[in-house]
Amino acid sequence: MKFMTGNTKKEDLEISQILEGNLIGEKITVSGAVHTVRDMGEVAFVVLRKREGLLQTVYENNVTDVDLKDLREGTVIRAQGIVNGEDRAPNGVEVRLEHVEILAQPVEAMPLPIGKWKLKTSLEAKLNYRPVSLRNVRERAKFRLQEAIARGFRDYLHEQGFTEIHTPKIAAKSAEGGANLFRLEYFHKPAVLQQSPQFYKQMMVGVFDRVFEVAPVFRAEKHNTKRHLNEYTSLDMEMGYIDSFEDIMEMETGFLKYTVELLKKDYAKEIKMLGVEVPNADKIPVVRFDEAKKQVSEKYGHEIKNPYDLEPEEEQLIGRYYKEECDADFVFVTHYPSKKRPFYAMDDPEDTEVTLSFDLLFRGLEVTTGGQRIHDYNMLMEKMATRNMEEEGMEQYLACFKHGMPPHGGLGIGLERMTMQLLGEENVREVTLFPRDLGRLTP
Amino acid sequence: MKFMTGNTKKEDLEISQILEGNLIGEKITVSGAVHTVRDMGEVAFVVLRKREGLLQTVYENNVTDVDLKDLREGTVIRAQGIVNGEDRAPNGVEVRLEHVEILAQPVEAMPLPIGKWKLKTSLEAKLNYRPVSLRNVRERAKFRLQEAIARGFRDYLHEQGFTEIHTPKIAAKSAEGGANLFRLEYFHKPAVLQQSPQFYKQMMVGVFDRVFEVAPVFRAEKHNTKRHLNEYTSLDMEMGYIDSFEDIMEMETGFLKYTVELLKKDYAKEIKMLGVEVPNADKIPVVRFDEAKKQVSEKYGHEIKNPYDLEPEEEQLIGRYYKEECDADFVFVTHYPSKKRPFYAMDDPEDTEVTLSFDLLFRGLEVTTGGQRIHDYNMLMEKMATRNMEEEGMEQYLACFKHGMPPHGGLGIGLERMTMQLLGEENVREVTLFPRDLGRLTP
Repeated sequence: MKFMTGNTKKEDLEISQILEGNLIGEKITVSGAVHTVRDMGEVAFVVLRKREGLLQTVYENNVTDVDLKDLREGTVIRAQGIVNGEDRAPNGVEVRLEHVEILAQPVEAMPLPIGKWKLKTSLEAKLNYRPVSLRNVRERAKFRLQEAIARGFRDYLHEQGFTEIHTPKIAAKSAEGGANLFRLEYFHKPAVLQQSPQFYKQMMVGVFDRVFEVAPVFRAEKHNTKRHLNEYTSLDMEMGYIDSFEDIMEMETGFLKYTVELLKKDYAKEIKMLGVEVPNADKIPVVRFDEAKKQVSEKYGHEIKNPYDLEPEEEQLIGRYYKEECDADFVFVTHYPSKKRPFYAMDDPEDTEVTLSFDLLFRGLEVTTGGQRIHDYNMLMEKMATRNMEEEGMEQYLACFKHGMPPHGGLGIGLERMTMQLLGEENVREVTLFPRDLGRLTP
Repeated sequence: MKFMTGNTKKEDLEISQILEGNLIGEKITVSGAVHTVRDMGEVAFVVLRKREGLLQTVYENNVTDVDLKDLREGTVIRAQGIVNGEDRAPNGVEVRLEHVEILAQPVEAMPLPIGKWKLKTSLEAKLNYRPVSLRNVRERAKFRLQEAIARGFRDYLHEQGFTEIHTPKIAAKSAEGGANLFRLEYFHKPAVLQQSPQFYKQMMVGVFDRVFEVAPVFRAEKHNTKRHLNEYTSLDMEMGYIDSFEDIMEMETGFLKYTVELLKKDYAKEIKMLGVEVPNADKIPVVRFDEAKKQVSEKYGHEIKNPYDLEPEEEQLIGRYYKEECDADFVFVTHYPSKKRPFYAMDDPEDTEVTLSFDLLFRGLEVTTGGQRIHDYNMLMEKMATRNMEEEGMEQYLACFKHGMPPHGGLGIGLERMTMQLLGEENVREVTLFPRDLGRLTP
C-alpha cells in the first residue's frame, strides 16, 4: 500500500538559499521562469524569476546543453549548474548553467516589458494584461505587502482573544440597506450581496464576545473614483464588553503597531524594493469631527460646505494638518453626525446629534469606519422607529438584543485602501489583483 | 492633544485567569452574561458565560448589592467579588458577588434552553434561532474547531512559501461553467458568482508560484442533502513547479498533520468538551479510483452502478475499508475519469481516460478535490476544442499559458465539510454559522 506522509522537500533550491552565498562551487538544481535574456555572444545572462526574487544564471556556448534560442522570456526551466561568486552579479552570486530541462515554452512574446525594473505602462494596460503585468517583480511585491496587512489583522486579533467567523454573502437583507446593493435571484427568492458583515458580526458578539472576518463585500455604488471598488476585501471586527468606543480605537491602534512590526520583520525586502515609508502607529491623534473641520478651515482656508460629512479634500487636509502638527500618519476623527451614520450607531448621550463613532484617516484617506453600536433592545427599536424602518427580515438580528447583548462596537477596514495608502499609490486598482468597477468585470 | 497608544488592557479579568486558582481571597472584577441561575434560598448560583467558558458566581442575600430577580438568563453584568476556593464548584473556584452593575437586560426569556450542557433541540430550531442557540457553550465550541482548520491551512501554507490572494467573487464567467451558477446583473452586464477561484489561482501561480485563498464560493446546485451548501468557505491553494500531482497530496498531508497538532495544542478544551476524536494524518493511504471501487465491491458486495463517479455510499465504504485495513481516517483516491473532471485537469499520459487528480476522503466523505492542471498552451487549446468550449471571456486565463506557466496543480477543501467530519456531525448545517440552502436565506 502506498502512503503520503507530508514530505514537501524538493531537490530544487529556492533562490534565497542560493543567494546566501555559502554554496559557491557547488552543483545545484534550480527552477524558474526566464525573466530576461542578455546575449553577449560567447555567453548570455539568463535571469530566472521565482517567488523569492531573481537569480542571474549564465549560459555558455559548449557548456550549457540547450540552444540559447530555446531560452526565451517566459520559458520555464529546471537546471543544474555550478554556483559562482561574481561581484558584478546581484548579491554577488550567479549560477553557471550546465544541464537545462525545458518545462514549458511560451507561444507568444510578452505583451508588456515585465523584465524592466519599473513597469512604466498605463494602469489600463496593466489591468488588461493582469496575469502578465503581475509577473513584474515590483508589481507583485505590492500584493505581498497586502498579505502582511491581512496577516497582521488576523494574528493580532487572535492574540487578543478574537474568534474568526465566516458569514454568508448572499442574504435576504443587508445591514445598511439602500440603493447600493447588488441584487440576485436565489431559488426564486429576491436576495442581495452583503455590503458588510455588520448584522452577522454583531450577532456573533453575543456568542464569542470578540470576532473578526476577512472577506469580500459588495457595493453597487456608481462611483468611478480612484478610491472606490465595487467589490473589496473588508477586515471586519466586533468586540463586546467595551467601556467606551475608545476601546475599539485602542484595538485598531494595537493592530497597526503589530502590523508595522510585521512589515519590518517579514517584508523588509518588499518594503525596500518599493521604497515604502513604513508609518508610525505608536501614538495616533484623536480629534472630533467638528473640531477637525474647524482646524483645516482655519489653517488652510478651506470653506466648510457640508457640515455633516467630510469631503475628500477635507480628509486630505486633516491628514496634512496632523502630519504637520505632530508628524502623524494616522488620525482618528470621532463623533460623526448621527444623520450620516446607520441606525445601529450609538448616539452620544451628551449630544444625540453625534455618534460614538470614528473614521481612521491614513495619510489623508479614510481607511476605517467604526464605532460603538446600540446594545439595548428598546433603544434600538426606538431608533428604528425614528427612521421608519421595518423589522421584517431582521428578526434574528433583533432577537440577539432581546436576549441580552453586552456593550459593543467594531470596525471595518478596506484592505485595498489600506494597501494603497501604505504604498503611496494614486489609484486603489494598483493594489487590487482583479478590480471590479463600473467598467471592469473581467478578467 | 489626545492620542491612542494601543492599550487594550482591561480591569475585568478573563475567566481563565480566575480559574487558574491563584487569586483565592482576592477581590476581582469580572464581566459576563448570566448563563444560568439556581436559586437556593439564602444563596443563588449565578453562572456567567464569557468567551473562555463558564464561571460560577455566588449571589448572597445582604451581601450582593442587587436584587436577585434582576439577574436573569441573558442579563449582562460587570461585578466585583471575592475569589473563593470551593471544591464543589467547577475547577474548584467560584466568585462571591459583592457589587453588581447591570450592563444590559434581556426583554424576553430565551426561546431555547441554552444553559443546558447539551442543547437537545432540532437542527431546524437551532438554525431558526441561530444567534441564541450558538450561546450554548457546546454549540459555539464547534466553530472554534472550524477556526483551527482555517488557521492551520493558512499558517502551514505560509510556512511553505505560499502567498495569500483575494480574488473577485463577481465575474463575467466562471471556471466550471454549467448550470450551477448564481447569476446577477452587474451594471447592465450579465455576471455570475464564482463557484471557485480556479482561474484566478492558476493565473497567480504564474506570479507567486504558490498561492492560497480562504473565501466564500457559491454553487446554485439544487441538491438538498446533509452535505451540500449553496454557499460555503473554500480553502483553496495552487502550487507551481510540481514534479507530479503527488506533490499536492504531500502538501495537503503536511497541512493536515500541522492542523492536528494545532488542534491538540490550542484547542484542547473544545476537543475535550465535544469528545472529538482527533484523526491521525501521519500516513495517508493512496488508492486509484478504479482499484478502490473494486476493493469495496469485493469486500462489501457493493454493486458498481456508475463506473465514472463515486456514489456517497461508495465513499463511505472506501472510508470503512481503509479504517479496517490500516486504521486510516483519511484516504486519497486518485486517477478520476477524465470525463468527470473539468477541461483544465491534466490527463494521465499513460492512460488519457483518467486524470492526474484526486479526492481526499475523510471518514468516508469527500472533503477535497485536487489535481494537476494542464500548463501547456497547445494542450489546453486542444482539450477545449475537444469539449467544444469557446475562448470568449477566457482571454486572460489563456494568456497566462501563452506566456509560459510552470507545471502546477492545486486543491479546494470545503471548510464546513472538513469540520463536519472532524466533529462526527450528521449534517453540514450543524457546523455552518448561517447556512444557505434551497430553503434558507435568513438570518
